Amino acid sequence: MPNEHAGDGYPTRRGGPSVALPRRDPVVYGGVDDGPLDAETMHRYGDDGFLVVRGLLDEAEVAACRREVRRLATAADLRGDERLVPEPDSAELRSVFAVHRLSPVFATLCAAEKLVAPARQLLGSAVYLHQTRVNCKPGFRGRDFYWHSDFETWHAEDGMPRIRALTVCVALTDNHAHNGPLLLMPGSHRTFVTGRGSTPGANFRTSLKDQTVGVPDEDAMRTLAAAHRITAFTGRAGDAVVFDSNCMHGSNGNITPDPRMNLFVVFNSVHNTLVEPFAAAAPRPEFLGSRDFTPVGPVPVG
Amino acid sequence: MPNEHAGDGYPTRRGGPSVALPRRDPVVYGGVDDGPLDAETMHRYGDDGFLVVRGLLDEAEVAACRREVRRLATAADLRGDERLVPEPDSAELRSVFAVHRLSPVFATLCAAEKLVAPARQLLGSAVYLHQTRVNCKPGFRGRDFYWHSDFETWHAEDGMPRIRALTVCVALTDNHAHNGPLLLMPGSHRTFVTGRGSTPGANFRTSLKDQTVGVPDEDAMRTLAAAHRITAFTGRAGDAVVFDSNCMHGSNGNITPDPRMNLFVVFNSVHNTLVEPFAAAAPRPEFLGSRDFTPVGPVPVG
Repeated sequence: MPNEHAGDGYPTRRGGPSVALPRRDPVVYGGVDDGPLDAETMHRYGDDGFLVVRGLLDEAEVAACRREVRRLATAADLRGDERLVPEPDSAELRSVFAVHRLSPVFATLCAAEKLVAPARQLLGSAVYLHQTRVNCKPGFRGRDFYWHSDFETWHAEDGMPRIRALTVCVALTDNHAHNGPLLLMPGSHRTFVTGRGSTPGANFRTSLKDQTVGVPDEDAMRTLAAAHRITAFTGRAGDAVVFDSNCMHGSNGNITPDPRMNLFVVFNSVHNTLVEPFAAAAPRPEFLGSRDFTPVGPVPVG
Repeated sequence: MPNEHAGDGYPTRRGGPSVALPRRDPVVYGGVDDGPLDAETMHRYGDDGFLVVRGLLDEAEVAACRREVRRLATAADLRGDERLVPEPDSAELRSVFAVHRLSPVFATLCAAEKLVAPARQLLGSAVYLHQTRVNCKPGFRGRDFYWHSDFETWHAEDGMPRIRALTVCVALTDNHAHNGPLLLMPGSHRTFVTGRGSTPGANFRTSLKDQTVGVPDEDAMRTLAAAHRITAFTGRAGDAVVFDSNCMHGSNGNITPDPRMNLFVVFNSVHNTLVEPFAAAAPRPEFLGSRDFTPVGPVPVG
């Protein structure tokens, strides 16, 4: 049953138009001594809701990731597996979920200190993997990802209580202006925009291809875009953007020949583990919202 | 019957993969004394296949155009008219064709010397209106326009013999990096890439929403993009790009709140008027390929 208790600070999908609610949680939970990020970087992340890290992966790591995606895309034992999501208009691969479970290469990478340490520092606690995926956005026909706050979905459909999660998004191909780069609204993470509609059963089966439920309505988006403007994360393969789970983002499609393939590694605080969904009858499957809360990497003391 | 005579320099849609053929026609037909463009500008157009003109329309003209589009979009007597094309995924307006016939505002603008004179100069003769349209690319759900050479379609489906036409594309809203700006491949106008497949009857009924026939295959596009790179036309409302009819172009979709509305005015040389289609059973309707070859504006002597 949906978890519609009175204490829900982020009521969403209750019908009617989108409403803008203030964020009730910190953005930066840790301190400058808790990890590799310096004070200025943490401050910028607090203001913008994201930060760009150049060269997080080297060429060999990027190449290994891309080989793994090619292997998974064609693996005979994964044919028809629901973790592999095709494009809405073609059979081409749109997303692969739970890559850390499907691939030792991604398992190692998702537990690497250079990814985990900033997450732990910003979230001020040990962290675990809530979700991992690769979005392929193939050349010529990669479709858009509509505007959304990840947290809205994770709260509504997975039962994530508070805003204390983030994504490390790593470019596995060059992300340039024309191949559908990630668009973010700096500062939008301080506003929780409630989703329209209500969640139908097994919504994820369509939403992973084309999200229409839980997205903010157009009036809310116009207001948010006017207040925060839109900026693109562009960079070379290996560059990364770390973004707050409530930062409004999306991306356009891709008609260029160059695929825009990105790895998304979602870290959640161990103090923010999943309960019952807040706006759905049943939680989504494990590959979308993990209930294995085992911390990754060394656990901080205290 | 298709016009498959032996002298067709641009055979297309004959089955098999796309083939790259050399352009058999000039790019710049006129001289520096034939109009307002200076030698350097004409040279650049010859090299790139397009040129950008800032501030071609003033604010009042832009506002008048946008009012006209709003009027046409909701005009009771145009409901169901085939010149108004909806988006593939929604009822929102994607394109309005033959705006110079539907609207006195556009009729006046499309005959204005500031649009016609550069066309006449570059094409080296009197010109007439082959096609006019507004592509609305609405905010939030404007879909892409896949890569194509206009000339390929006009040759195959309208019976345009040679490459001696161009488009004046005027921004009616700001065109920025994120709302699906026109993407062009500089220099691609010197190569004619044959279209795959053959033309089904009344192809235009689907191609105006989602073009799949006559487009180059992916191998050809990869080669072309590698040779020519991709550049975006961005600018303020009122800015324009003039591009050769064989310049490869397309645009991504638009999830931003800002519509990307552009006027396209296609001028063809009066020495290049339409004959029978080169790769279709019957010509497309008048609103797509006009057979009224009356020159617009003053006709040059000689």
